[in-house]
Amino acid sequence: MSVTAAQGFTASGVTVGLKSTGKPDVAVVVNDGPLKVGAAVFTSNRAKANPIIWSQQAVADGVVEAIVLNSGGANCFTGSFGFQTTHQTAEKTASLLGVSPGDILVCSTGLIGTGDEIFRSRVLEGVARGIEQLSVDGGVAASEAIMTTDSKAKRSVVSRDGWTIGGMAKGAGMLAPGLATMLVVITTDAVIDSSNADAYLRAATRTSFDRLDSDGCMSTNDQVTLMVSGASGISPDADAFAAALAEVCLDLSKQLQADAEGASHNITIRVEHAASEDEAVEVGRSVARNNLFKAAIFGNDANWGRVLAAIGTTDAEFDPYNVDVWMNGVRVCAEGGPDRPREDVDLTPRATDVLIDLKIGDSSATILTNDLTHDYVHENSAYSS
Amino acid sequence: MSVTAAQGFTASGVTVGLKSTGKPDVAVVVNDGPLKVGAAVFTSNRAKANPIIWSQQAVADGVVEAIVLNSGGANCFTGSFGFQTTHQTAEKTASLLGVSPGDILVCSTGLIGTGDEIFRSRVLEGVARGIEQLSVDGGVAASEAIMTTDSKAKRSVVSRDGWTIGGMAKGAGMLAPGLATMLVVITTDAVIDSSNADAYLRAATRTSFDRLDSDGCMSTNDQVTLMVSGASGISPDADAFAAALAEVCLDLSKQLQADAEGASHNITIRVEHAASEDEAVEVGRSVARNNLFKAAIFGNDANWGRVLAAIGTTDAEFDPYNVDVWMNGVRVCAEGGPDRPREDVDLTPRATDVLIDLKIGDSSATILTNDLTHDYVHENSAYSS
Repeated sequence: MSVTAAQGFTASGVTVGLKSTGKPDVAVVVNDGPLKVGAAVFTSNRAKANPIIWSQQAVADGVVEAIVLNSGGANCFTGSFGFQTTHQTAEKTASLLGVSPGDILVCSTGLIGTGDEIFRSRVLEGVARGIEQLSVDGGVAASEAIMTTDSKAKRSVVSRDGWTIGGMAKGAGMLAPGLATMLVVITTDAVIDSSNADAYLRAATRTSFDRLDSDGCMSTNDQVTLMVSGASGISPDADAFAAALAEVCLDLSKQLQADAEGASHNITIRVEHAASEDEAVEVGRSVARNNLFKAAIFGNDANWGRVLAAIGTTDAEFDPYNVDVWMNGVRVCAEGGPDRPREDVDLTPRATDVLIDLKIGDSSATILTNDLTHDYVHENSAYSS
Repeated sequence: MSVTAAQGFTASGVTVGLKSTGKPDVAVVVNDGPLKVGAAVFTSNRAKANPIIWSQQAVADGVVEAIVLNSGGANCFTGSFGFQTTHQTAEKTASLLGVSPGDILVCSTGLIGTGDEIFRSRVLEGVARGIEQLSVDGGVAASEAIMTTDSKAKRSVVSRDGWTIGGMAKGAGMLAPGLATMLVVITTDAVIDSSNADAYLRAATRTSFDRLDSDGCMSTNDQVTLMVSGASGISPDADAFAAALAEVCLDLSKQLQADAEGASHNITIRVEHAASEDEAVEVGRSVARNNLFKAAIFGNDANWGRVLAAIGTTDAEFDPYNVDVWMNGVRVCAEGGPDRPREDVDLTPRATDVLIDLKIGDSSATILTNDLTHDYVHENSAYSS
């Protein structure tokens, strides 16, 4: 049910021809209240798409009435014409819903540089038709309309004592933190005020979407939005809400990882006994971004030397001659030297676990990534053509 | 002629079975003086191979009598046994040459974690046979003995007014700065003292090997060594020597780029009008390391959006909406928006030029890189097996 699992939300997904495949390409999610609370986190890429520039301003007051998302074009580096397109998208949505344009968020995904007059007219048509088709059952259609190279839609729902959090996500490439490249909309009928919504969302993304690093490439269009209707009338326990939101975010993160372009392994890199959580993240991310390591995993090769070489490029505190590395439960490197033969590691399963024990401190972190495959190269060499 | 082009040097390359292919695998280069000046720069990877740890100490006094290099095993993360192997390599070389072990440099390349008793005995055998076969014509044989996945040996020679600089290099993967992963030996018969040798070498590598970034992966075994015999008896003009050394380094860098594992494009990324040279390098390197950009070039796709997305991940001063991007002479992006159609760019030649005009300041830099191909993935998924 995705974004309409929680009470107080309607959604839709329609097809207006933005994608050459003829698949659904515009999604609308509307908050019917009573609360109209919204929070969002955005790509940290300094090259930001027009919808990001717009949405950052629109969400600043913590009020969000609706969000419009399109696939089939990123509306990034499309000049002032592109920004006007985003502005008109918000204005048309607001006009049809009878609310303020400043309370409408916009997201776009697809090829950078796409955002001409045809794009604009089709997005605006999508707004009109999407609003016509809004429904309390529209969550599935919305989740399908935001797909790009995704092979399946990503949805997640968690329900607790009378309140619900539901979400949808898209993303299959350019998955790297700050955020992992993606569009995500999460809704809840719990009663949460805007400052808490922002804090909960930042905390949950920090240990989920921000730790998914499929290919080290940071997008221009990332946005994770939380919309709060309060329709359940229930004010949840803070810890319970935080945990449930984290669960939805992590579930969606893992769905994104599992559907990453061309990947043949979902790699979970766990870094333990680091001096700090930041250093654990730095180490895990450095390994996750190492093409030689990623290609080795594709080749079912437990090449732990590439793990150590990647750790060595970080500023994290560690002793190269006191590091242990485990792959799928086999310790292949002990104290910076060879341990069990790499041939003992079975890397044929898609799920791959790498454990790095730095033996320095008490902090740990987990990074999710993928291998580097022929199919990744193929998909990303042919994407725009 | 490589390292024996300059007067005062002998070299050899022998086969002792370190490589399963049965190709030459140990090289020796000896400085017969009269000067015995040496300087070296090393990988900045904090995970350093045993030969690096040894050579950093040995070169510290600026005196180098000889260098021994082996392929077929990196002797990295091989514990204290591996360090003793390096130590014994230097001692045996010194004993046979009648010099001090502290004036012998050692380099190894090959698979990390390789350095067992068989490895040790073969390297030591290589020292003995290599010294037996030292010759003033041995430069070619030496350059062939250091190859790993290289498809051809890399050699370069520049001669000026009575003095010569010659060099050899190996490297085909893990090519990323600090240094670009490689073993390089450069010799000269010019008269240069040790402090100047060090300064000249650092200056030349900074704008050559350090700006080659084939795959973003930094090695554990990089070493670039300069050996000075002074046998020409000529003290060159400082600027002339610096220019000639830079020419040799850049020539070898381009040979490394041209032979990078699996690459189908040699990409030259020129960043102009940056606020500083460091920022120009940061921008160029960020683009060079972006897998989506690299895969697009493989697919002959002038996907300038991925260039801008990569620039946006840097801290360099720039305005995303005032950047121009040219590919092979075609301006595909003007002021952060689409310019000429990407289809107008012919990316079928192996040589690919990307020009990024930041329009901020007066500094520029050039980064050499390669595309991301099926063959890169293939070679690096199968390397150790």
